Amino acid sequence: MLESLFYPETIAVVGASRQPGKVGHDILANLMVGGYAGTLVPVNPDAKEILGLACFESPEKYDGTLDLSIIALPQQFVLEAAKSSIKAGAKAIVVVTSGFKETDARGAELERQIASLCTARDVRLLGPNCLGLVNTANKMNASFAGGLPEQGNISVISQSGALCTAILDITAGRHLGLAKMVSIGNKADINEVDLLKALAHDEQTRVIVGYLEDISVGEEFIKAATEATLLKPVVILKSGTTAAGLRAASSHTGVLAGADMAYGAAFKRSGVIRADSFGSLFDYATAFAMQPLPKGDRVLIITNAGGPGTLAADGVEKAGMQVSQLSTNTATGLRHKLPTAASLGNPVDVLGDADPARYTDALQAAQEDENVDAIIVILTPQAMTKPAETARAIAGSLRGDKPVLACFMGGKNVLPGREELVAAGLPDYDAPERAVQALKAMVDYASWRDRPPRVVTRFRVNRRRAERIITRSLRSGKIHLGEVKSKSILQAYGFQVPEGYLAVTQEEAIEAAERLGYPVAMKIVSPDIIHKSDLGGVRLGIADGEAVQDYFDLMKIKISRHAPQASIEGVYIEKMLNRGLEVIIGMNRDPQFGPMLMFGLGGIFVEIMKDVSFHLAPVTADEAIQMLKATRSYEILRGKRGQKGVDLIAIAIGLQRISQLATDFPQIMELDINPLIVGEKGSEPFVADARMTLKNIG
Amino acid sequence: MLESLFYPETIAVVGASRQPGKVGHDILANLMVGGYAGTLVPVNPDAKEILGLACFESPEKYDGTLDLSIIALPQQFVLEAAKSSIKAGAKAIVVVTSGFKETDARGAELERQIASLCTARDVRLLGPNCLGLVNTANKMNASFAGGLPEQGNISVISQSGALCTAILDITAGRHLGLAKMVSIGNKADINEVDLLKALAHDEQTRVIVGYLEDISVGEEFIKAATEATLLKPVVILKSGTTAAGLRAASSHTGVLAGADMAYGAAFKRSGVIRADSFGSLFDYATAFAMQPLPKGDRVLIITNAGGPGTLAADGVEKAGMQVSQLSTNTATGLRHKLPTAASLGNPVDVLGDADPARYTDALQAAQEDENVDAIIVILTPQAMTKPAETARAIAGSLRGDKPVLACFMGGKNVLPGREELVAAGLPDYDAPERAVQALKAMVDYASWRDRPPRVVTRFRVNRRRAERIITRSLRSGKIHLGEVKSKSILQAYGFQVPEGYLAVTQEEAIEAAERLGYPVAMKIVSPDIIHKSDLGGVRLGIADGEAVQDYFDLMKIKISRHAPQASIEGVYIEKMLNRGLEVIIGMNRDPQFGPMLMFGLGGIFVEIMKDVSFHLAPVTADEAIQMLKATRSYEILRGKRGQKGVDLIAIAIGLQRISQLATDFPQIMELDINPLIVGEKGSEPFVADARMTLKNIG
Repeated sequence: MLESLFYPETIAVVGASRQPGKVGHDILANLMVGGYAGTLVPVNPDAKEILGLACFESPEKYDGTLDLSIIALPQQFVLEAAKSSIKAGAKAIVVVTSGFKETDARGAELERQIASLCTARDVRLLGPNCLGLVNTANKMNASFAGGLPEQGNISVISQSGALCTAILDITAGRHLGLAKMVSIGNKADINEVDLLKALAHDEQTRVIVGYLEDISVGEEFIKAATEATLLKPVVILKSGTTAAGLRAASSHTGVLAGADMAYGAAFKRSGVIRADSFGSLFDYATAFAMQPLPKGDRVLIITNAGGPGTLAADGVEKAGMQVSQLSTNTATGLRHKLPTAASLGNPVDVLGDADPARYTDALQAAQEDENVDAIIVILTPQAMTKPAETARAIAGSLRGDKPVLACFMGGKNVLPGREELVAAGLPDYDAPERAVQALKAMVDYASWRDRPPRVVTRFRVNRRRAERIITRSLRSGKIHLGEVKSKSILQAYGFQVPEGYLAVTQEEAIEAAERLGYPVAMKIVSPDIIHKSDLGGVRLGIADGEAVQDYFDLMKIKISRHAPQASIEGVYIEKMLNRGLEVIIGMNRDPQFGPMLMFGLGGIFVEIMKDVSFHLAPVTADEAIQMLKATRSYEILRGKRGQKGVDLIAIAIGLQRISQLATDFPQIMELDINPLIVGEKGSEPFVADARMTLKNIG
Repeated sequence: MLESLFYPETIAVVGASRQPGKVGHDILANLMVGGYAGTLVPVNPDAKEILGLACFESPEKYDGTLDLSIIALPQQFVLEAAKSSIKAGAKAIVVVTSGFKETDARGAELERQIASLCTARDVRLLGPNCLGLVNTANKMNASFAGGLPEQGNISVISQSGALCTAILDITAGRHLGLAKMVSIGNKADINEVDLLKALAHDEQTRVIVGYLEDISVGEEFIKAATEATLLKPVVILKSGTTAAGLRAASSHTGVLAGADMAYGAAFKRSGVIRADSFGSLFDYATAFAMQPLPKGDRVLIITNAGGPGTLAADGVEKAGMQVSQLSTNTATGLRHKLPTAASLGNPVDVLGDADPARYTDALQAAQEDENVDAIIVILTPQAMTKPAETARAIAGSLRGDKPVLACFMGGKNVLPGREELVAAGLPDYDAPERAVQALKAMVDYASWRDRPPRVVTRFRVNRRRAERIITRSLRSGKIHLGEVKSKSILQAYGFQVPEGYLAVTQEEAIEAAERLGYPVAMKIVSPDIIHKSDLGGVRLGIADGEAVQDYFDLMKIKISRHAPQASIEGVYIEKMLNRGLEVIIGMNRDPQFGPMLMFGLGGIFVEIMKDVSFHLAPVTADEAIQMLKATRSYEILRGKRGQKGVDLIAIAIGLQRISQLATDFPQIMELDINPLIVGEKGSEPFVADARMTLKNIG
């Protein structure tokens, strides 16, 4: 997959130039300087020779077969160059030129034409509006950013070419190696999904790092990311998470990014590690690239100074990991090797005058100790400290089965130590908090890898009944389903719904009420009214026939006064069930990622406290329970201070049923059960009110 | 103040040694190498000469007068050396030796003796267990950390010597200048308060940076910090903020730190900027050291790349600042100078091939624009980018009236640019998010500086009545005040309390109820029972005399069954007032910082959602309102969706009255009004239940 892009034997540079600083010159020069060993074919009708290589008038004039063609021509010549490249056999094309979708409608149309041409001829297209790509495995710097990075196991996908240049510059300075780096530009063809698939199976790649401003196709992304994260960690920095950022990104790439919440849910679903800053992106990547995954979250800190050790311990606890203690045996063994003043708690303080041996003694003890899953080693440059020797000693005593992260604090004096660490495959951070955050990302990913297999329960439901209601509504042009129809659908999907009847006349209303038995509820039924109660269209606890009669009239009068245009289908007479705790279950179809479920405690908890949780459908039983636990008000559900809680499993089953409904019927755009009334364990919750919005999906 | 410590003319190094690596050698060597121009007096009975200087047998053998004596002797000789130094005229003593309070009780006692000696002789003591101090103004490196830092305007106070060495190393590498650096060690005498006072008035110091594990005297700290932050920013990293961190810090410095929440309240009260990581400590400090304060929070971003610009815009919005737009005039003017493809929104995108002139054009426009308060300049190293030239050009066009923060992203290629920036007094950050955070700290500090003067309202209260109740209770050994006494005190301080009477017999109960008028509430009165309702000791809405009679007996029976030991004083018969919204007002006396007020909405909001806010007493009217606004449930108080809210001012006045009560009576350790019932605007809230805990403070 993408073989011709990453491992071409012959590369054309279309628009090659003699003039340094021009993109067409720099790409050719970078390929040569980097040491690319294949055949290079400069294309320029006005030159005989560029950088010592014979030049061709057009790609198709080349007498051999091209694999990859890199086009760096002004926008209006790109389509022709692509055609010619394909004639010359190119199976992959990179367009670095800008001025397409990101600029105007004409550019967008031209971009579409180029992409169609490539797709029709089974040729893959990278860009346009990109920096190119780098593959260190074959020393191919097919970009206009100078300097082939050192070979390594981090691969980068970036929607910003400038971030690629920054990353190249950073990794060069820190001697961090890269495997592949791809600038995806406007993503006319090749996008993050293609690259996730390719890099997941790329042997040189141990960790995939991405900077994304949007995601092209949500469902495909989730599928590809889920498969990739089974094999290796994927760390993504997603920008455009605020309105301001979105505006900035939109003017930049000409696309509208999806809601940030949906991205969060999609990343959670697919095991993607989300970096929340540019700094953390590489902090995490280096940890994953260099160290094994931890088996748990018990962290031991080794330090030659109290202050930084305290900062690290604070960080570990705040991140929700455990500041563990050495086992008695290990502590006793270590006690003999360290000075009396050394502390054997956590942090293990090897004291300010620690030599390399004290560090390795402590490190060995920690590596052997069964109470320790991960180790952070802190060094400050004190009078007796030997950073480089200590780094070498630490590197020499690594067992490689537990992650060890280093934090050598300081500048000039510790620099030699830092370089030794990185050379030995030990990630190093300039402050304890950064090491802690990187470790936390590892712990989270390890527990994702260890999760039980996802099994989505399929409930027995009356799918045909739901289908009938949905199809009929859509056929008659109704997209807003009111309480009655929504409840019928939910009932077909196994929800308990209070018994009730639609009454068109007063007489029918009384008859229905007597059949149900008092007290009853009365609710106006109108396709035009969403907030019934605000307009006086709901009455609860009606005790006798006379009251039914009165309210039937009153309700109609009120509605006709407040909403004279509303067509009224009748009044719904419903059995009153015992009230309980109100929760809200909802579904909203995200344009990118599909059905997203929402859960929250009713009323102010959702409206004021925004205490809600989200998950993409379909959800498993475990994920549904996690949705409950993710709210702060979970304690209320569970029962606080010895009070009885509600039936949590019943709510979780409700979420799963909604999940199934949303998956079965893509026509349902939105759905709200507000509220679902839940009671004690063993009681069955019921739908007190509900509504849905449909869409004709043809 | 601390003149002899910072500007001594003669310094003794007691325990001077010929052997490099020994503390007594390194301090002397560091003083000499650093270029200290005063007189140095090495003291060592076994040497004639050290490093070319004549040696003395003891401090008092020196024939001149000492100003400062630095003692680097084994612990058992320190007291004697201090005595001898004082005899020789020393007005300040630094003890670097460890093994005192941080080690054991004997060490603590010895430390106390040394401190007493110094205090009695009016000599200031720094340490023990510290690194020493540095003053670049007189080139004095009186520490055992090598390398005098460059002269600058950042001063550092640190409770960790190792962090001092790390900071020295970092600043050396980045060419950041320091004014003074003081390692405070065990703080036997000189502590953060002394240094805040001294550095606040130190002309070389523009920003004070601190690393603290605890604070010695809370109230003094608040006073000193409040005075210091009036003059210059104070940025503090406080560690030991979690249980794990606290354990780590405690074993390290031998002190128990106060609650983290109280520190937060103390910092807020005194305008201290809190850094939440070691990285942010210097990120903030450099911004303050180099740039003017912003006049508002409207930020303009200038960038040569979309991706990093988007990250910055996301950051600005997330931090609660404004991503502002250039005014039409400025934008039009700038439009003529930049290429057509450049974006004039925010971020201003000067494009990937931007030369220095484009940056300065954009920067000048932003500096002149009245819609812009602060500017972030981002550069990525693209093909045409000239980092060093751009840095120089930016530096050359600074007007100096708005803060400009730079983010030159990358490594090797941008390094020359970074160095130019720092040399020109422009703070530079390696990622956009870091620049944004530093700017946010500046905006916060600027608004703190501009705040209106604090005026604490004194209400007319019946102080003597409250005093009588408190004194009598304490005299009779009662420290837990139940509902009745607490309400009396609160009534004396202006709170509305429902009318009520204590009834000892059934007859009294009925008589009281009839006098009040039905319905009434009945509550058991016992000094031994705190949670009355849990034991069936509270009944509300009692409608007639028969019910009063019944519940009087029932209540006594229930209590005697559930709490047979409890002595019952009677039953409190209380008028039922109209209910409203329940809020909780509390006070808890922090051992470090004194009375801390708490506010939250009643019930689950406090217990489950932890939706509470804190402020140190005394509070002003504005601070009390801020306490309400700081809760997430503020929307409920204010009235949501057109519903009427409650009387916010009335709650704020309640907080201020509690503040006054807590300030007037240090005997009150804890106080809870739970709940205070509040109604619509204009209605007077009342105390439904309350309790207090007292302490005999002699």
